[in-house]
Amino acid sequence: MSQGTLYIVSAPSGAGKSSLISALLKDNPRYDMKVSVSHTTRATRPGEENGVHYHFVSVDDFKALIEQDAFLEHAEVFGNFYGTSRLWIEEMLSKGVDIFLDIDWQGAQQIRQKMPKAKSIFILPPSREELERRLNARGQDSDEVIAKRMEEAVSEISHFNEYDYVIVNDDFDVALMDMKAILRAERMKQDKQASKYHDMLDRLLAQ
Amino acid sequence: MSQGTLYIVSAPSGAGKSSLISALLKDNPRYDMKVSVSHTTRATRPGEENGVHYHFVSVDDFKALIEQDAFLEHAEVFGNFYGTSRLWIEEMLSKGVDIFLDIDWQGAQQIRQKMPKAKSIFILPPSREELERRLNARGQDSDEVIAKRMEEAVSEISHFNEYDYVIVNDDFDVALMDMKAILRAERMKQDKQASKYHDMLDRLLAQ
Ligand SMILES: Nc1nc2c(ncn2[C@@H]2O[C@H](COP(=O)(O)OP(=O)(O)O)[C@@H](O)[C@H]2O)c(=O)[nH]1
Ligand SMILES: Nc1nc2c(ncn2[C@@H]2O[C@H](COP(=O)(O)OP(=O)(O)O)[C@@H](O)[C@H]2O)c(=O)[nH]1
Repeated sequence: MSQGTLYIVSAPSGAGKSSLISALLKDNPRYDMKVSVSHTTRATRPGEENGVHYHFVSVDDFKALIEQDAFLEHAEVFGNFYGTSRLWIEEMLSKGVDIFLDIDWQGAQQIRQKMPKAKSIFILPPSREELERRLNARGQDSDEVIAKRMEEAVSEISHFNEYDYVIVNDDFDVALMDMKAILRAERMKQDKQASKYHDMLDRLLAQ
Repeated sequence: MSQGTLYIVSAPSGAGKSSLISALLKDNPRYDMKVSVSHTTRATRPGEENGVHYHFVSVDDFKALIEQDAFLEHAEVFGNFYGTSRLWIEEMLSKGVDIFLDIDWQGAQQIRQKMPKAKSIFILPPSREELERRLNARGQDSDEVIAKRMEEAVSEISHFNEYDYVIVNDDFDVALMDMKAILRAERMKQDKQASKYHDMLDRLLAQ
């Protein structure tokens, strides 16, 4: 059984990262893939469920988890703490399940250090105007709040060149196909195929 | 304009490599891709055209081309010489065209040395029985000839683990989709996208 692949997916908010990951998991019943549920100290938003979107915890609980070395990576993002569970990830990967981490550039850097085989994908919005439009979509935020979001988005985007792959999410279906192509191609990598076809290769190579 | 990608494709004869490459070029009118036509000293087979399947040359001409440094790589394969034109490849790549080299493992090793950005794909037959069946398909060859082809195939296959990607050609359409996924994913690589979206990224990152 070959190890699952760990995919890091980052993007500024407004690039469509979460929709892409959900669509991917829904459309690919043939393959074992799961998305990791992070811990966070930020407030629950309407519609979010504890244990589904995040494990919502207090700052004290979060700090205790850091002490227990429970996180593969953790970072402060725009004033809140976020962290990725170590145990669950390690268990899933060892079962051959591909795992998606929806994390920021700081988390991505930590994961690359610890798990050099992880593959990272950055999702870009198609233009500055479209990014502004998407950040503004709810229409109820002040100019100041929007300017702040724009600044945060630009700061995340400035790390795009640390990633293995870059997808531009202009047309959602095209971006989804791009994601799927990356996953399919990664499964064709020599080491993955060598373990998948181990017995067949033995027979082919027998003299 | 970003450089084209050089794809090395190797396989034992009988794995379906040529059909895969032709199907790929036919189905992808959107992208600029071409297959390199090698020089060879082997005899022309019925149905083969000079300048289309190979440039057929004498041993003396081939040696003169080596002297002129005309080849990016060359090798002796099963008693005949084969070589890849340097100039044409360099010109096409600089124009952004993706190039396919249908060459053996010796040529692949030389290209990897000289052009470390080249990507290599190995095509495997689905089983020993199917490989024997395909090598035997014409039905007019002696057992000895078939045994020799089998030995050559096994010797080529023994190098599969030097390649970036491995495709098993069991169902042709699946193998073709695998190939296409690899090409699509390679176009999503960070450096390719950074040059394709250079201006857009400048605008996104402007403060
Ligand atoms: N480093 C790290 N970043 C995370 C983790 N979970 C979420 N994030 C990132 O934190 C940022 C904010 O996420 P969130 O609060 O859900 O807001 P939104 O995604 O912008 O709507 C996003 O860039 C997420 O990718 C994590 O476990 N570790
Ligand atoms: N190194 C190298 N190998 C080549 C070149 N052209 C063809 N070959 C390989 O030579 C081998 C024999 O090719 P060919 O004579 O067409 O026979 P067939 O492909 O087995 O039917 C194949 O493995 C080809 O991939 C080349 O320019 N350089």
